[in-house]
Amino acid sequence: MTQLEQARAGNLTPAMKIVAEEEHRSTEFIQAGLAAGNIIITHNPHHPQGRPLGVGQGLRTKVNANLGTSMDHIDYEEEMLKARTAVEAGADAIMDLSTGGDVVALRSRLLNEIPQALGTVPVYETAVRTVKKGKRVVEMDPADMFDVIEAQAQAGVDFMTIHAGVTRESVDRLCAQGRIADIVSRGGAFMAEWMIYQEKENPYFAQYDRVLEICRKYDVTISLGDAMRPGCLEDATDRAQIQELIILGELARQSKDAGVQVMVEGPGHVPLDQVQTNIQLQKRLCENAPFYVLGPLVTDVAVGYDHIACAIGGAIAAAAGADFLCYVTPAEHLRLPSVQDVRDGVIASRIAAHAADIAKGVPGAREWDRKMAKARKALDWEQQMALALDPKRAREVRESSRPQTAEVCTMCGDFCAMKGMSEYLKKK
Amino acid sequence: MTQLEQARAGNLTPAMKIVAEEEHRSTEFIQAGLAAGNIIITHNPHHPQGRPLGVGQGLRTKVNANLGTSMDHIDYEEEMLKARTAVEAGADAIMDLSTGGDVVALRSRLLNEIPQALGTVPVYETAVRTVKKGKRVVEMDPADMFDVIEAQAQAGVDFMTIHAGVTRESVDRLCAQGRIADIVSRGGAFMAEWMIYQEKENPYFAQYDRVLEICRKYDVTISLGDAMRPGCLEDATDRAQIQELIILGELARQSKDAGVQVMVEGPGHVPLDQVQTNIQLQKRLCENAPFYVLGPLVTDVAVGYDHIACAIGGAIAAAAGADFLCYVTPAEHLRLPSVQDVRDGVIASRIAAHAADIAKGVPGAREWDRKMAKARKALDWEQQMALALDPKRAREVRESSRPQTAEVCTMCGDFCAMKGMSEYLKKK
Repeated sequence: MTQLEQARAGNLTPAMKIVAEEEHRSTEFIQAGLAAGNIIITHNPHHPQGRPLGVGQGLRTKVNANLGTSMDHIDYEEEMLKARTAVEAGADAIMDLSTGGDVVALRSRLLNEIPQALGTVPVYETAVRTVKKGKRVVEMDPADMFDVIEAQAQAGVDFMTIHAGVTRESVDRLCAQGRIADIVSRGGAFMAEWMIYQEKENPYFAQYDRVLEICRKYDVTISLGDAMRPGCLEDATDRAQIQELIILGELARQSKDAGVQVMVEGPGHVPLDQVQTNIQLQKRLCENAPFYVLGPLVTDVAVGYDHIACAIGGAIAAAAGADFLCYVTPAEHLRLPSVQDVRDGVIASRIAAHAADIAKGVPGAREWDRKMAKARKALDWEQQMALALDPKRAREVRESSRPQTAEVCTMCGDFCAMKGMSEYLKKK
Repeated sequence: MTQLEQARAGNLTPAMKIVAEEEHRSTEFIQAGLAAGNIIITHNPHHPQGRPLGVGQGLRTKVNANLGTSMDHIDYEEEMLKARTAVEAGADAIMDLSTGGDVVALRSRLLNEIPQALGTVPVYETAVRTVKKGKRVVEMDPADMFDVIEAQAQAGVDFMTIHAGVTRESVDRLCAQGRIADIVSRGGAFMAEWMIYQEKENPYFAQYDRVLEICRKYDVTISLGDAMRPGCLEDATDRAQIQELIILGELARQSKDAGVQVMVEGPGHVPLDQVQTNIQLQKRLCENAPFYVLGPLVTDVAVGYDHIACAIGGAIAAAAGADFLCYVTPAEHLRLPSVQDVRDGVIASRIAAHAADIAKGVPGAREWDRKMAKARKALDWEQQMALALDPKRAREVRESSRPQTAEVCTMCGDFCAMKGMSEYLKKK
């Protein structure tokens, strides 16, 4: 039985207990959220040493780091280092988006060495298989699409992005809409291109029951991919995007009815003033299924700093109810990310997630900042470093510039307001 | 006559024309905003080659970079390099917050070499003078406070932070409130400590007419300092802060009535869900005087990455109506910023400002992103690099990882969604 089925049956699983403890919530809260479909616990029992990850309403906002090879850059050791770096930096989940070289072997290493939840986009492996056979992506065999899902599920993948919302209906609406950037989702583009070339309906949509059957068997969480996510601000919140979201809402409902855990993916590039609207709309149309957002990026021009554009959008999105943030690295729109890019991306998204958790009142979030504030006022530098979101970085910067008086910093020296006020307020 | 007095008299000044052109607004719009006190043009005629800077309602959100020596770190060449770096990175204004070494000589170089608006906090120089005489900050002579304002105005400083809102009333409320971090504003702490030690009212408040007289003479814009800005989330939006804001609103009114241009400074450390409230409150209590925010930082724990916490808060603040963002660098709370910190801080705040300008509908903001989106879809890399907020950085990252096919990037290689969709949508 999946965690969703267990919760509905009134059973308390070890995974629910682990999540409850980590989230400072009661087991009843977790169980009720699961049963209602507001919470998922992504945890494929086939993932060796895999750790259950709770995502959803009332829980800490989670952060995912994407990594993986591309045809232009294949270095397995570097990808493993990215995975370890992401985990060290505090990522809650990893998505392996490999499309170059031996993608099965790399994934197997990730599943064996990384206990954090692992996600994939199965159509990538189907595309890689097809190209290796000397065919084009538009010639993918639907049988291969389902075989890959089953093989990955058996190997222990915890959650999978399935682009089932890119249908004849949504592609027609896309064409009628007219967009600047059309489709920018890689998996979404594969499916749309396949549908146009084959003149057929999307197999993931047409045979969604097959997807459900496999995912139910291995308790794989379906992450409904947003093929129509806007690739620029100008395309945001348009009819193509919202049409797909309606279909995703229907598929989410169908998944839950089948006992399969499900979350929904969201934009993308969204102007700051449309972010909240997008969250409210997803929550309503998808009946509170957990929302997994990529970004959103609040400007198209922050090339080289898209982790910052993402942190702005992600913080607003998460404060408005998004549950899971997919990081964006400084390399986005430019190249495959480096190890340092991965680190910077994870930290930026964690800042966004935490700022949102304070706003949402997630248990424990505000207490962390209160402790930091007290350590700062006490000029207790050891505590400040220990409480930093990234203690390593905080220590490096602090140690690079030593003040004459150990208790202050080189910004203000002995003119330190914290120090002076403590002295004079005592006299008052 | 100040720009405010000229606007009220119905005169169109060269500065108004320059600002109108830069902002894609009519001269009537600028003049009306100035006359109403919703817009300021900070421009001291004594600033050699100084360029007028418009700040306020309906205008592009501006970014300020703080720099300057401290007692622990005195390197004039480094500060000059920080200033040039900030300007290259796109800062609209510089604040010289020097408190170490020959602060007058450094400021003179800044005024002579940098045409961007220059701001100061005059009480810093008063404190430095006092300490050089072998006295403590709490022994500052009020005469020195006004002498410094006059000397700096004569030298060409465009805007000055005056901590006139830290009064007996607001300090009493601070003590009654009970805070974790008390006062974290350096200038605010100087004044509060002085008042407690001297048992006297704040001279900037008690003799505010003297401040106004000097600022009117040189058309120096007063930036009403927020001594009571929260130094941690827990202290945000408390009675001490709002009491000071009420006083600042009264002083802003008094300034405008005297023909002196004025803006108001704001927090600080503010939880994400209180940012908008803070902006609305300032706009109302200060009768739409331009709002200059430091941050706000939406978490206390992002040590080493406070430019990102600042970008999140700044974007939300500016979208809600803040007009001027003071950057925060990655070195905040740790040390005096390096040249690289200055660059990173300016870029992060520019991203926030631009994201907000899109949301606010500032003329030209959205068009920039539309051009980038079209360049991206056309796989026109030269245009993408040229349109980047920081073209230098974008080029560096792009060139560090060359794809096999020149038209794509190493993230997706030939699986590029932009490329594939263009090909297949043509066939449909």
